[in-house]
Amino acid sequence: MISPKMATMLGYLMTDASIAPARLRRSLKSALPNSFNAITVDGDMSTNDTVIIMASGAAQNRAFSAREQAIFDHAVEEISAALARELVRDGEGATKLVSVEVRGARSAADAERAARKIANSPLVKTAFFGCDPNVGRILMAAGSSGAYVESDRLVLWIGGVKVAANGRLLVEALGEAGTKMRQREFAVQLDLRLGKSSATILTCDLSYDYVRINAEYTT
Amino acid sequence: MISPKMATMLGYLMTDASIAPARLRRSLKSALPNSFNAITVDGDMSTNDTVIIMASGAAQNRAFSAREQAIFDHAVEEISAALARELVRDGEGATKLVSVEVRGARSAADAERAARKIANSPLVKTAFFGCDPNVGRILMAAGSSGAYVESDRLVLWIGGVKVAANGRLLVEALGEAGTKMRQREFAVQLDLRLGKSSATILTCDLSYDYVRINAEYTT
Repeated sequence: MISPKMATMLGYLMTDASIAPARLRRSLKSALPNSFNAITVDGDMSTNDTVIIMASGAAQNRAFSAREQAIFDHAVEEISAALARELVRDGEGATKLVSVEVRGARSAADAERAARKIANSPLVKTAFFGCDPNVGRILMAAGSSGAYVESDRLVLWIGGVKVAANGRLLVEALGEAGTKMRQREFAVQLDLRLGKSSATILTCDLSYDYVRINAEYTT
Repeated sequence: MISPKMATMLGYLMTDASIAPARLRRSLKSALPNSFNAITVDGDMSTNDTVIIMASGAAQNRAFSAREQAIFDHAVEEISAALARELVRDGEGATKLVSVEVRGARSAADAERAARKIANSPLVKTAFFGCDPNVGRILMAAGSSGAYVESDRLVLWIGGVKVAANGRLLVEALGEAGTKMRQREFAVQLDLRLGKSSATILTCDLSYDYVRINAEYTT
């Protein structure tokens, strides 16, 4: 599905549904923000990223009812999210899949900024690789993202373990958080406690193999 | 001068000149854009980055003439640039110092955007480590930076060797460019040929040791 060496993502979705092109485009478009557009391996955008959906009409169904359309849209969302997830898991040298969830932000833009900056930070991603519950690096990334942050309000969880709250590092929780980071999948959850907006970005760790693959390979 | 493990930059400049605090601040401020604020190791901003200049007045000189002030300002600029250069050379795992110079941009903001994106791209930085004159990655970074770019106008040099011009990759030049990249220092120069603005950012490569140092170290 993806050849990370090409640093290129080509996604194809196919259905035998009979559905008007404009409506099909809408289904895909609404599935993108939380799937293909919510992932990152290294923050580098390929010049060739493409997602295409095709409907053959072979099913010869009559036009969808509103309920059927909702089911179809949901299926497109689910498949897009599953493919996007596999893309990150398959990232160059990735050993871990990490869901970075920011909530309680003042605006959707703030939530996305903070989540993307955490998800793309080389210091955070090497800490993921090292199973190091490095609270300082995660909060550095959030703070330098441009999002509005109050360090004495936020709460941070790593692998479901609360590691910082009300401006205090919970030192006694770090051992357990480090253990959770040894899993192939875990979440980083940051509640800014300033508003109602949230954003989730899927990322992976930055390993020796990321360097090896990308230093040895010539395009 | 810097402990890269701390991901923290503390810069101190000292002089025995007698100079008013406000004027001294101006000297330092005007030296920053092309020195400490024009470098990057991994795009991660420390919470503790600090540059301080102190004047003891022990020289007991009379107030500077305009010419003397210009000489003093120049000295502050030179020292700041030299310290900034050493900071990058001393970056975690850095084996190469690379000057990324963008010129011919439509605006100063565009020039800086493109230079920073190239200088922070993990794909570009691993290519530096691998001595790979990867034109595609450099242009991908410029193109995705938000700067206005026309791919059929730009000219790109790596280590002084022209590797792309007028939308064409100069395949025959890549061998020589790869050889130049084996040096400890080289430049990437991108002329967008769209305007008169330019920006230079100093960066380093992304090596196995960057991952080792930052994955093993816990703050």
